[in-house]
Amino acid sequence: MTSFAFRLIATDGAARCGEIATAHGAVATPAFMPVGTQATVKGLAPDTVRAAGADIVLANTYHLMLRPGAERIASLGGLHAFMNWPGAILTDSGGFQVMSLSELRQIDDRQVTFRSHLDGAMVELSPERAVEIQALLGSDIAMQLDECVKLPAARADIDRAMWLSLRWAERSKRAFGDGAGRALFGIVQGGDDATIRHESARALVDIGYHGYAIGGLAVGETPEVTLRVVDEVAPALPAERPRYLMGVGTPENLLDAVARGIDMFDCVLPTRNGRHGVAFTRRGPVSLKNARHAADPRPLDDASACPAARSYSRAYLHHLVKANEMLGAILLSEINVAYYQELMAGMRAAITGGRFADFQAQAKAGWAQGDLVPL
Amino acid sequence: MTSFAFRLIATDGAARCGEIATAHGAVATPAFMPVGTQATVKGLAPDTVRAAGADIVLANTYHLMLRPGAERIASLGGLHAFMNWPGAILTDSGGFQVMSLSELRQIDDRQVTFRSHLDGAMVELSPERAVEIQALLGSDIAMQLDECVKLPAARADIDRAMWLSLRWAERSKRAFGDGAGRALFGIVQGGDDATIRHESARALVDIGYHGYAIGGLAVGETPEVTLRVVDEVAPALPAERPRYLMGVGTPENLLDAVARGIDMFDCVLPTRNGRHGVAFTRRGPVSLKNARHAADPRPLDDASACPAARSYSRAYLHHLVKANEMLGAILLSEINVAYYQELMAGMRAAITGGRFADFQAQAKAGWAQGDLVPL
Repeated sequence: MTSFAFRLIATDGAARCGEIATAHGAVATPAFMPVGTQATVKGLAPDTVRAAGADIVLANTYHLMLRPGAERIASLGGLHAFMNWPGAILTDSGGFQVMSLSELRQIDDRQVTFRSHLDGAMVELSPERAVEIQALLGSDIAMQLDECVKLPAARADIDRAMWLSLRWAERSKRAFGDGAGRALFGIVQGGDDATIRHESARALVDIGYHGYAIGGLAVGETPEVTLRVVDEVAPALPAERPRYLMGVGTPENLLDAVARGIDMFDCVLPTRNGRHGVAFTRRGPVSLKNARHAADPRPLDDASACPAARSYSRAYLHHLVKANEMLGAILLSEINVAYYQELMAGMRAAITGGRFADFQAQAKAGWAQGDLVPL
Repeated sequence: MTSFAFRLIATDGAARCGEIATAHGAVATPAFMPVGTQATVKGLAPDTVRAAGADIVLANTYHLMLRPGAERIASLGGLHAFMNWPGAILTDSGGFQVMSLSELRQIDDRQVTFRSHLDGAMVELSPERAVEIQALLGSDIAMQLDECVKLPAARADIDRAMWLSLRWAERSKRAFGDGAGRALFGIVQGGDDATIRHESARALVDIGYHGYAIGGLAVGETPEVTLRVVDEVAPALPAERPRYLMGVGTPENLLDAVARGIDMFDCVLPTRNGRHGVAFTRRGPVSLKNARHAADPRPLDDASACPAARSYSRAYLHHLVKANEMLGAILLSEINVAYYQELMAGMRAAITGGRFADFQAQAKAGWAQGDLVPL
C-alpha cells in the first residue's frame, strides 16, 4: 500500500507542478477535485469522472456522517468501494457545512453541536470525531475540523475562530496518529487579516501536517481579497508540502491561484453550472439557454478531449436545457469537469515547460474573446 | 442505403423471432424500443442506450414538433444526427399525446387542432402533416396519425374513432409515397371490441403497410383485456410484416404479448420507474427506496450484462435514491433499459431454440420468487 507523499516536479515562478502519491493512485498537481458531496459527483458515473481526467474527488463528511453514516460506509468497505471510485479521495472535516447548512449550532472548545438538516437530530462533531469519521470513510486525505467565519467579519471574531481552529488542529493530529499511510491536512484560518493568517500558518507548520489548506475563503469576499490572502499565506507554507485552496473556484481563480503557488482546488461550479445550463469552455462560459444556440450545429469545442464536447451540437444541448432534460445537466456537467481537468493539465504542462505566464495570458485571452467568434 | 424490410427467422408457437432492416442498422425482433420522448431517452446518453443492447428507440412527434420543431431538426440533419443516435428510430404520429397532453383539442375529419401545452399556441395536425413531420425528422419507421380512445368507452365512440383512424391511414399512405426506403405502419384501432378491431385490421391489410401496430391499448384497461385484443388481432395480421403493440408494458406484458405473436414494443416504464427508484430484475421489480437495502453490499444482479447492475451495491443505490441524487435515476434507468433488452434477447434465443414456453415459465418463476432470496 502506497503511503501519502508529495513530490515537487517543476516550478515556474511561484507556480508548482508536482505529484501526490496515495494508496489510490497518483494525483498530478496542480489538481482540481470535482466535488462528490453525497458520495457522487452530481450527475456523473465514476467512470465518466475518471475519463474526464480526474485523479481525485472530494466528498463531504457533513453529508455522509448524516446519511448514510460513516459506520455504515465503513461496514460496506469504505468510501472508495461504496461509490465505486478507484482514484484518490479527499474528505473535508464537516466544519464548513455545519456553518452553512445547519440552523442550530453551538460551538465550544470541545466540539460543535448542530441540528441535522435531514431529520432535526442533534449531532456532535469534535475534532477527534471528524478524524474518526474520515478514517471510517477511508479517505486518502483528511482535513482537520476548523471554524470557518463568513467574510466580512470583525477582527476579534476572525482571531477567536483561528485560535479555536488551531487548538482543534493539534487535537486532530493527535487523534489521527500515523493514519496508516493516509494524510492529514491542517487549515490556515484568519479571514482577510494578514497578521492572523501568518500566526495560523506559522503555528500549523510548527506542528507539522502532510499538507496545508487555506480555508475560510470563497465565503463572500472578492477574488482580489482571495488572491491577496493567497499571496500572503503561500510563501509561509513549506515548499515540500501540497497547498490546497478550499472551495475555489472559477477557471480564472484557479489560474491566478496556481500562479501564486497553490497545488489543489475543489469547487462545485463545474457540476452546479452544468445543471444550470452553463458550459465552461476555452472561450469562456457559454449559457446554452441562450436562443442564439438554437440552430447552431457546431459542437461546443471540437478540439476538446471530452467526447461530449465534440459529439453534440449546441442546438441539441440548447434543446435539452430548454426541455429540462436530465441529459442536458449530465452532458454539461461532464463537459465542465473535463474542461477543468484540461485546464489543470495545461497548467501542469506549462509549468514543466517553463511557460506558465504565456499559458496564463493565452487562457485569459481565450476567455476574454468569448464564444461568438468561431473557435 | 438499406431500405426497410422484415425477415422472419424462426417461430415457436405464435411467438416470432425476426429482423427488421433499416437504413440505420438491423433491429432484432422481438424488440423493445426505449422511449426518447424529447429526442433523449431520459437520463441516458445514446452510447449507454446502445451498450444496453437497444437497436432502436422511439421518439415523440408531438413533443418534437412543438420543441424544437420538425423543420429545425431537419435543418440540423435529422433526428439521428440531432440526438446523436446511430441506430434505428421509430416516431409515433403525435395522435396519442394530443389526446393525453393538450387541453383544448378539436377533431374533425380533416385534422386535429390543439393547444400546445408549452406556449398555448393553437397547432394543427393532419395525417399529411404527421407524415411530413416524420419525414423531416427522418425516422426509419413512421406511424399514421390515429385517434386513440381511452378505455372504457362507448361502442359508438370506439367505432367512430376507428373509422376516422382508417380514413387517416389511407391519407397517410398517400402522403407517405415511397418514403425513400423508410417504413409506414398502420394502426389497428377498435378499443376492446373484437368486431371493430377485425374490421380495422382487415381494412388496413387491404390497403397495405410496411408493418402494423395495435394501438389504443395500455390506456386504462386490464392486462387481460390487452391480451384478449392481441389474441384477436394478431392472427388477422400478415405473417410477413412486423407487429407492434404500442405503449406496452411490464416485463410480464412483453412476454405474454410475444407469446401471442407481437414483434415490437415501446414503454416509458424502464426509465420512469428508474427515476422513481425501482429496478427491474430477474427476480421482479426491486424498490431501492426500501430500507432493507441500506446495508446490503450485493449488486442488483452480478450475472447481468449491464455494468451498472454488477458494479454498484444495493446499499449505494439505496443511498442515491434516498438522497435524491441524479446518479440514482441514471443508474437505475440504465439497469432497467438493459434488463428489458436482456429479456428481449432471451426471448429471441428461446424462440430460435424452440423453447419459448420454457423461457416464459422460467422468467415468470424468477419474477414470482422475488428479490428476498439471494440470486
